Amino acid sequence: MLTLDKIYHASYVLKDVIRPTHLVKAQAITNECDIYLKPENLQITGSFKVRGSGYKISQLSDEEKKRGVIACSAGNHAQGVALAATKYGIKSLICLPDGAPISKVEATKSYGADVCMVPGVYDDAYNEALRLRDEKNYTFIHPFDDENVIAGQGTIGIEILNEMPDVDAVVAAIGGGGLLSGVACAIKSLNPNIKVYGVQAEGAPSMYESIKQGKIVTLDSVSTVADGIQVKEPGEHTFEYIKKYVDDIVTVSDDEICSAILKLIETQKMIAEGAGAAPLAAVMFNKLPVKGKKVVCIVSGGNIDVTILSRVIKRGLLMTGRQQTVCIELQDKPGQLLAVSKIIADLGANVISIHHERASEGSDVTGCYLRIVLETKNYEHVREITKALTDAGFKLV
Amino acid sequence: MLTLDKIYHASYVLKDVIRPTHLVKAQAITNECDIYLKPENLQITGSFKVRGSGYKISQLSDEEKKRGVIACSAGNHAQGVALAATKYGIKSLICLPDGAPISKVEATKSYGADVCMVPGVYDDAYNEALRLRDEKNYTFIHPFDDENVIAGQGTIGIEILNEMPDVDAVVAAIGGGGLLSGVACAIKSLNPNIKVYGVQAEGAPSMYESIKQGKIVTLDSVSTVADGIQVKEPGEHTFEYIKKYVDDIVTVSDDEICSAILKLIETQKMIAEGAGAAPLAAVMFNKLPVKGKKVVCIVSGGNIDVTILSRVIKRGLLMTGRQQTVCIELQDKPGQLLAVSKIIADLGANVISIHHERASEGSDVTGCYLRIVLETKNYEHVREITKALTDAGFKLV
Repeated sequence: MLTLDKIYHASYVLKDVIRPTHLVKAQAITNECDIYLKPENLQITGSFKVRGSGYKISQLSDEEKKRGVIACSAGNHAQGVALAATKYGIKSLICLPDGAPISKVEATKSYGADVCMVPGVYDDAYNEALRLRDEKNYTFIHPFDDENVIAGQGTIGIEILNEMPDVDAVVAAIGGGGLLSGVACAIKSLNPNIKVYGVQAEGAPSMYESIKQGKIVTLDSVSTVADGIQVKEPGEHTFEYIKKYVDDIVTVSDDEICSAILKLIETQKMIAEGAGAAPLAAVMFNKLPVKGKKVVCIVSGGNIDVTILSRVIKRGLLMTGRQQTVCIELQDKPGQLLAVSKIIADLGANVISIHHERASEGSDVTGCYLRIVLETKNYEHVREITKALTDAGFKLV
Repeated sequence: MLTLDKIYHASYVLKDVIRPTHLVKAQAITNECDIYLKPENLQITGSFKVRGSGYKISQLSDEEKKRGVIACSAGNHAQGVALAATKYGIKSLICLPDGAPISKVEATKSYGADVCMVPGVYDDAYNEALRLRDEKNYTFIHPFDDENVIAGQGTIGIEILNEMPDVDAVVAAIGGGGLLSGVACAIKSLNPNIKVYGVQAEGAPSMYESIKQGKIVTLDSVSTVADGIQVKEPGEHTFEYIKKYVDDIVTVSDDEICSAILKLIETQKMIAEGAGAAPLAAVMFNKLPVKGKKVVCIVSGGNIDVTILSRVIKRGLLMTGRQQTVCIELQDKPGQLLAVSKIIADLGANVISIHHERASEGSDVTGCYLRIVLETKNYEHVREITKALTDAGFKLV
């Protein structure tokens, strides 16, 4: 049974395991409400997960500790279990699907875990972990559907209220629901007037659908940039707690999540992963009734692969008019490239790449295309450039 | 005269202006020494500059406050002055060169300053600011060569020692030298055994050269990714303080700075600008005698344009084997693209872009080229792919 007592106990126990993370006022994001961030992306291991696994592992019996723990994860849970086990001086084995990003595998090893790469996808790694648990008598650390794990995550709720007792609403992302269950229990137990909201990705709305339908729903497939909350089925415990304690659940699109990631980079100098930016996305895109309120968005983690980050930034640049591709149909005669180059240079845009190709079917046989990727200042600048090109007689396609 | 007293007074005054920034232990960067970060990139306005301008402005006479302040900057100083002036309820006018990034202009306005866009470069904006100062009787806030400004920056030194009295060395970047002058004065006054080091960019080593030559040197041109420390000439005061208090100055290359920026993103989930990452770069690339020591690197700011950030990340991906371009000379016959695609897919690489072009002079007239940009896991993965292509008879160029 999850109780406020247990969450307070977890706070006490975790003091030596976690880093303190202080609320940050997020200025320059919106004038609609006062946004504060709980930056668990700056937590050790780069996410809140170490709280749940840390408390869970601390409460194992000596016998269980001696046998060691096992977990299955391609991401934050793996690093949390690895670090917590190492802190308590016990062995950990983490099963990962063999397609897991190298960076996460290396991070997990660096926190002291043994790693078992399992051919296949997450479900294969999960089954292998259960098999190894039975074979070797390890204790399995569930990523979310476990009361001690949930109590560990709930410590975030206590910290938020300690630092800001007059908060109006707290928003957290939901994957399996461990984080939100713990936080909601803590907050509603201490002050039932504070609103608690959950956010899921549009491409993985398992808890959203489950709560709507009043029963646990298993999705056939899930897909979102927020891989940390890409979960097909909520936990049994977490479903019950969220039903009991949470005011509402909303969903956000991948584009909204990418905008929130970029906003955190530009205004807060912080890296969030998709799941970590989802609560802010929900507030930025007015999915929640928090106008004029004091809102804490939990930035649950920052473990985003730089390859993905690079794409997110590129998408953000496109969406804000700071990168633009123009495709021009040219006459196939000398001097055309020069004329275009001059217009672009005069207007202060920076050429990133140029691709010049001869006509294919559907265009004039003497024509050719010039495709230019430009660094621009904003949409206004893009319009200036396209207007100047059009005014000079070039045909944009 | 800069004294410890004045720096303590600045600490007292700045309490209501700045955000507290706590030292962060930076794990997973090196085993050579214990690195701690002073994250002034998380400071309000995204850099430490608000400390110096905040203290300077607080010490103006009522008469001066009534007339308002003026400053010239394309970056962090602008935002610092704007915010500090607004906090003290006085008017500020910031002159910026008209090529300044839109994002910085908007940020400066958002903190409440009036902005004057001056045609030309920094020097033009600077001259215009001096002209306006004389014409309108504003108080000019120098970005670094002012004792109250330096005292404000020095508060960082006091905070470091309060939080970690047993630190062995403190490292800060040098542009004009205001930050390092203040920090070094604070630290050496409190404990002369602590080493204090300065870092400059290889492309802008004005203080480094000045100290080496024992006189102020003005560089003809400066160029570095760390635009915040791209300064042609040290200040007169800062030159004297750094000569007196600082143990050594080293330089780092742009590639080293980019690596440090990427490292901060991946391991600390933090965005640093070039100047902010320079101290860490100096430690990562063994420029300083800190083996086995407890070192604080001051991450002075995080205001990096996302366009630049995107390039820095791309460079980091290339440098660590996570993005690779392969160029293949193909026979001009059907099925070749299919064969190449299959090899790449089987090895789990992700295609980012493909460019297929016919032969030009110097190659076989029946040949053509395929240029593929791939997302790869690491250098080992790149080698596997090039080996598989070569083994299948493809010629890589």
